[in-house]
Amino acid sequence: MNTHDLIRELREESTSKIVLLVADGLGGLPMTPGGRTELETARTPNLDACAAAGTSGLSIPVLPGITPGSGPGHLGLFGYDPLEFRIGRGILEALGINFAVGPNDVCVRGNFTTLGSDGKITDRRAGRPTTERCIEIVEKLRTIQVTGAEVFVEPVKEHRFVLVFRGEGLGDVVNDTDPQVAGVLPLLAQGADPASRKTAGLVNEFIAKANVVLADEFPINGATLRGFAKKPAIISMQGLYGLRSAALAVYPMYKGLARLAGMDILDAGDSLNSQMAMLKKVWNEYDFFFLHYKYTDSTGEDGNFPAKVQMIEKLDAAIPQIRELNPDVFIVAGDHSTPSKMKSHSWHPVPTVIVADTCRTDGLTEFGESACLRGGLGQFEAKHLMLLAMAHAGRFGKYGA
Amino acid sequence: MNTHDLIRELREESTSKIVLLVADGLGGLPMTPGGRTELETARTPNLDACAAAGTSGLSIPVLPGITPGSGPGHLGLFGYDPLEFRIGRGILEALGINFAVGPNDVCVRGNFTTLGSDGKITDRRAGRPTTERCIEIVEKLRTIQVTGAEVFVEPVKEHRFVLVFRGEGLGDVVNDTDPQVAGVLPLLAQGADPASRKTAGLVNEFIAKANVVLADEFPINGATLRGFAKKPAIISMQGLYGLRSAALAVYPMYKGLARLAGMDILDAGDSLNSQMAMLKKVWNEYDFFFLHYKYTDSTGEDGNFPAKVQMIEKLDAAIPQIRELNPDVFIVAGDHSTPSKMKSHSWHPVPTVIVADTCRTDGLTEFGESACLRGGLGQFEAKHLMLLAMAHAGRFGKYGA
Repeated sequence: MNTHDLIRELREESTSKIVLLVADGLGGLPMTPGGRTELETARTPNLDACAAAGTSGLSIPVLPGITPGSGPGHLGLFGYDPLEFRIGRGILEALGINFAVGPNDVCVRGNFTTLGSDGKITDRRAGRPTTERCIEIVEKLRTIQVTGAEVFVEPVKEHRFVLVFRGEGLGDVVNDTDPQVAGVLPLLAQGADPASRKTAGLVNEFIAKANVVLADEFPINGATLRGFAKKPAIISMQGLYGLRSAALAVYPMYKGLARLAGMDILDAGDSLNSQMAMLKKVWNEYDFFFLHYKYTDSTGEDGNFPAKVQMIEKLDAAIPQIRELNPDVFIVAGDHSTPSKMKSHSWHPVPTVIVADTCRTDGLTEFGESACLRGGLGQFEAKHLMLLAMAHAGRFGKYGA
Repeated sequence: MNTHDLIRELREESTSKIVLLVADGLGGLPMTPGGRTELETARTPNLDACAAAGTSGLSIPVLPGITPGSGPGHLGLFGYDPLEFRIGRGILEALGINFAVGPNDVCVRGNFTTLGSDGKITDRRAGRPTTERCIEIVEKLRTIQVTGAEVFVEPVKEHRFVLVFRGEGLGDVVNDTDPQVAGVLPLLAQGADPASRKTAGLVNEFIAKANVVLADEFPINGATLRGFAKKPAIISMQGLYGLRSAALAVYPMYKGLARLAGMDILDAGDSLNSQMAMLKKVWNEYDFFFLHYKYTDSTGEDGNFPAKVQMIEKLDAAIPQIRELNPDVFIVAGDHSTPSKMKSHSWHPVPTVIVADTCRTDGLTEFGESACLRGGLGQFEAKHLMLLAMAHAGRFGKYGA
């Protein structure tokens, strides 16, 4: 029996509330063998109190050894098998800027680039223009029309934009045109099947016309594309779990992911404080709250161990504001690890703690990678986290007689 | 490769013996955070000795967060994936009273009820009649005939009976007629597909005739039905593992489950002592012995923490009688947790210990939820327990060259 069918069969009405706090890239590594990780170094009295009150463990985002991007990392936490449901970058970017993606849309992330007189890329980010300049350039690109489909151009930030082709029968198995290095020509789009060849034709037409439109806009005189993607068919959190679900995220990509899972995207401002203020404000209106905290990941990506420690401590300080609301189930998790030592996402299992009245305590008094190894949740697949959340929330009936 | 195909490929002849002692609802919770569970509170020198001699761990009955009924809980322990093999309540009840369920049978559990003059239910259990009275009423119902099928009525206990419709092409996707509350009319049976609509027709005909037959039997003047089910196609333990298998259970439902798995159901009396006496008596006749102990579950369901502790101690005291027989593999497990704190089955992983000469010891000296977290079996899916049993029993060959 399929897990989603099982969930729909067992779920029951309840007024209980679940808070899932995702500290992006939470897991880490010690800088030297035998040392402490970022989380173990940080002073985290509130996370430690969660570990003492609840049950801890380590989540495996996809499979042992598999490092996820933000998409699969979050899908797993929301209970969608990341090997079954795949989300292209283009879709994430489009959802993140609140673009109403439809079923006939192929979305792709664009970068403005600087091209030399020979057409080769000289700067992959076009000198990092301001976002204002990005918007101006996008306005010019909006004059472009392509044959037999609609095209939408949307600014994101600095050198980044989103391109959406809308038309019947467009496929998304199209290569990135971004060669990922300077000094070479942007790549031609090619489709892997008839529907995707149709898309590739539109892409090449658009880029050719964009090169003309941008001819005099140096250093923004070219564009590369990556992550062609259509919207996958994903049942909403409400449809799956019966949870009225709200996302309180600051960054576009995470709002986009939450939107894909059918959550309401609330205006959570741009800080933990504004996220907490919104959480309190809408507390009575939802059953499930997804809170996203980015800075544990970005500092890890920067390889800045002390900054990641500091960001963890900042998050820790906000936790009492959540617990004061008395959620029936409070979970702190991460979508993947981002060890400062590696300056990148990694596959290492991610510390996780569930706090609920029905927790079997495991004797832990601190929250960290080593402690979680001895936790009651053991090591588990991230896609099973929501099953535990639903169980602890009293939202599942019994399976079978 | 399907696990059952693998088992049949690898299994080898042996004279080794396996005892699986299932303490129903064994796992628990502390009543207050940081406290001890029922099992941790109980004085269990014999279980502790098993932990010291063997390898312990925690079984996950179905999936994290999924609370099983007795059916899925036991199927998993017997090595049948509980998400693949589903057993309806009607089947369990019928097997439990030793009814020879055939492939054309649809079974359902019945409750005698009291109906008011308006036909509405006034007592869902008809004043809990004696079992003698139940048998008398069943005799009267046996006069009823339905169109185009056979019908069997069997007494169970007090207000409970089993009804079996036997005929070609009967489906079992029929709603319960028991509305689960008093003050309303019993529900009409409806089938979800043509075969099940045929069954529903027989059901409604039977109930209409029963209402006439019982008209003067107040307070037993109605009946409700729930858990329509056909017998699932399950390979026997003998066919799967090559184990001559015996069940020593006291309660009907567990005999029924064992019968479904093709075990011989022995007359184990009504106590641990009689179970142990029968175990000794038939020791040379079987390879696999399923011993079921109910009271760890029923006391948990009652929310009676001290009683559950006492029942665990009582079970512990019986264990030397099993170990004296020198089984090659001795396993103590549970089909699910039943924390007194929750007064119900739960999803929490269940303490499990395997004792065999080939055990890798894990340093544990006590048997309990927290200790098992550090056990050598880790946390594992219950459906894998029999693989370990077969391996420790020397009954599996090598997989692949």
